[in-house]
Amino acid sequence: MRVCDIIEKKAARGELNEEEIQFFLGALCAGSIPDYQTSALLMAIFLNGMTERELARWTLGMARSGDLVDLSAIGGVKVDKHSTGGIGDKTTVILGPIVAACGGKLAKMSGRGLGFSGGTIDKLESLPGFNTALSQDEFIRLVNTVGMAVTGQTASVALADKKLYALRDVTATVNSIPLIASSIMSKKLASGADKIVLDVKVGSGAFMKTMDDARKLAAAMVSIGEENGRETAAILTNMDRPLGRRVGNLLEMQEAYETLQGRGPADLTELCLWLSARMLSMAGLGDFEACRKKAEASIENGAAAAKFREFVTAQGGDLTVLDHPEAHYPRPLERVVTAAADGYFRIVSAEAIGRASVSLGAGRVTKEDAIDFTAGIVLEAASGDRVVKGQPLFRLCAAAEARLEAAAQDLAAAYRITEDAPEAEPLILDVVDRRTLAL
Amino acid sequence: MRVCDIIEKKAARGELNEEEIQFFLGALCAGSIPDYQTSALLMAIFLNGMTERELARWTLGMARSGDLVDLSAIGGVKVDKHSTGGIGDKTTVILGPIVAACGGKLAKMSGRGLGFSGGTIDKLESLPGFNTALSQDEFIRLVNTVGMAVTGQTASVALADKKLYALRDVTATVNSIPLIASSIMSKKLASGADKIVLDVKVGSGAFMKTMDDARKLAAAMVSIGEENGRETAAILTNMDRPLGRRVGNLLEMQEAYETLQGRGPADLTELCLWLSARMLSMAGLGDFEACRKKAEASIENGAAAAKFREFVTAQGGDLTVLDHPEAHYPRPLERVVTAAADGYFRIVSAEAIGRASVSLGAGRVTKEDAIDFTAGIVLEAASGDRVVKGQPLFRLCAAAEARLEAAAQDLAAAYRITEDAPEAEPLILDVVDRRTLAL
Repeated sequence: MRVCDIIEKKAARGELNEEEIQFFLGALCAGSIPDYQTSALLMAIFLNGMTERELARWTLGMARSGDLVDLSAIGGVKVDKHSTGGIGDKTTVILGPIVAACGGKLAKMSGRGLGFSGGTIDKLESLPGFNTALSQDEFIRLVNTVGMAVTGQTASVALADKKLYALRDVTATVNSIPLIASSIMSKKLASGADKIVLDVKVGSGAFMKTMDDARKLAAAMVSIGEENGRETAAILTNMDRPLGRRVGNLLEMQEAYETLQGRGPADLTELCLWLSARMLSMAGLGDFEACRKKAEASIENGAAAAKFREFVTAQGGDLTVLDHPEAHYPRPLERVVTAAADGYFRIVSAEAIGRASVSLGAGRVTKEDAIDFTAGIVLEAASGDRVVKGQPLFRLCAAAEARLEAAAQDLAAAYRITEDAPEAEPLILDVVDRRTLAL
Repeated sequence: MRVCDIIEKKAARGELNEEEIQFFLGALCAGSIPDYQTSALLMAIFLNGMTERELARWTLGMARSGDLVDLSAIGGVKVDKHSTGGIGDKTTVILGPIVAACGGKLAKMSGRGLGFSGGTIDKLESLPGFNTALSQDEFIRLVNTVGMAVTGQTASVALADKKLYALRDVTATVNSIPLIASSIMSKKLASGADKIVLDVKVGSGAFMKTMDDARKLAAAMVSIGEENGRETAAILTNMDRPLGRRVGNLLEMQEAYETLQGRGPADLTELCLWLSARMLSMAGLGDFEACRKKAEASIENGAAAAKFREFVTAQGGDLTVLDHPEAHYPRPLERVVTAAADGYFRIVSAEAIGRASVSLGAGRVTKEDAIDFTAGIVLEAASGDRVVKGQPLFRLCAAAEARLEAAAQDLAAAYRITEDAPEAEPLILDVVDRRTLAL
């Protein structure tokens, strides 16, 4: 078999078979394929796409190119959850404790943030002492005893993805549904869960800007999961505005804990309850409505908040930082952005808010950048609220005046004050699963 | 400007503008583009194609990436001729003397052969002493005094083409009409002629296997030429069988000289007369019919054969080898392949004859291979002839028995003896020019 023949087949809209995919990905990881051949194949996939069967095989091949996590030592049905990335998305640290408090198990491998999209691992590390590099044994022990654990992705998961991603970034082949779907799902397949729930973000603050693209990506990922024997469901959610009211690592951990205590913003609470209920019902712990009631009850009766404390403590995190950040970090400088007129406050670009958070130091521009855990943005009003001139809209936190200034400029593009009340924008836009795809 | 943006534009079916093409080809030749980006762009062009205007610009950019030959010191309209490569194609050494004998000028840069497709430079070098590395001054002086000269392509013509071709070969992007057309035409534009006649070969022994592909390639090349202000015409000719009756370097030189003396095979004579007439009329020396009559007369009155001797002698070649090869080269071993039955002799694969000629040592497998000038094949019968059992069909010449044996095996796939007379296959299949394309 020759790499050139595989490229030729794909360029002629052929369907790569298992042998060809294995040969290519194997040689890729062995370092025996020159980059110019890999990038030619990536462009052919970018332009010609892949069949469902081919994409499922390709993704499984990518998963098998690195370490496969064995979760068999954990009892029950393991349901994993993944978000395609948005602004203010702290759902993992909320739904994990809810699911665990309701008798489910969450064994989660998470990533770090890059650009304006935050990462769960960064958020957790804003709690001093929190260990995000658990050994495989410790990870499984904690899931079995606490009901949940979150650890960083090891470098050896889905090795092929790292090599492909580095090339896609410089050959204009990032924005491809099959390549995005296989990148995400290869890591999910390798992570060992039995079932998978996906949160596909749609809007200005998300990678998928349109419902059409988001539906295609969701369908591709559900198909990959199902073809490989993992029940997979995707929810499409609005990312034209941030999720919740706080953006920034420690700020988001505080909001997560408040949400677990029943004091969270409506949108964030709703999404976490929906995802938890879906995960619990996929784990076989009741139908969706029953699981939703259980999830709500876990917030009301304090079980979810208690599970959060147990989880953080078990991984070495210091909870006192949530109430007393000044005891652990220098107090950040603050600036309040107020309404310039009376009217309706409307967020028009979640992306601008994400950019502002990076300007403040809450995110990374390059992989090597350090993060300022206390930097970030508090939305003092919700999109759609009636506000009066001079009313606070945003509170910005950062370590330097220049950062506050830059972020304030970024924010100008993020919102409008309008005379007419904006229409309510639903948070949950669609669900894609084996039923809706008629698989 | 970033290379990645250029790739992205092409991947999105955009039309590259002059600035983008110049930037890309300039950076390519400066060595500042990594191969993986070049191969991604090549695959995007392969799959998405190029507009006529874009392809014309791209080709001119490639031409300008290397040396541009200045033919302004040669008086009159300079018409160049190019063949896409076939088996037994020795037209250049026949039409050159005809054109020059009729008052035209041919300043021709030619290449060497690779694979089963022969190269004019190799054929000329089978004449001992023939100099195919003329200086620019000598080249122009000979065209002005003799009326024609043929020299090897310098390494610095169309530099970008060399870099692109090396990558296309290993990324399954060779077989692309715009990439083939721009590769050929960039060298024609750089070679400095005012007008261009193209001979596009179609069939089993050619790169273009179907009329449809050949028409597309011809149309693309004519369009590139015309868009860049060079009148260009293409003739499509049959390459399901070799051109003429001899394949091999010195054998073809002998056949060329015989054809110039009016003793050549009908197909070869006809094509050379057509091409010469077209070149002469494009040079403004009369209409096609009048030029054709002049060309025929130049053979009949000996002027073309005399011009051939003048041309060879002027470039240092020894003409005595044509009549007495044994005085210059070891006498080759020979083998005759005869008809196994009575019937009609029909060549079904020119490619198999090409392969056989390589087996005999008349062609190269790699660029570094040496060529045996006296090796080759003589067709003792023409395709379509009635033959009887035992009648010679092919005479093979080579330096070693093993080569004769290998070639005899290759030839088995080249012909059939059939009971029914095969239908006559026309040599000239179509003409594509500014008139047929309505430019």
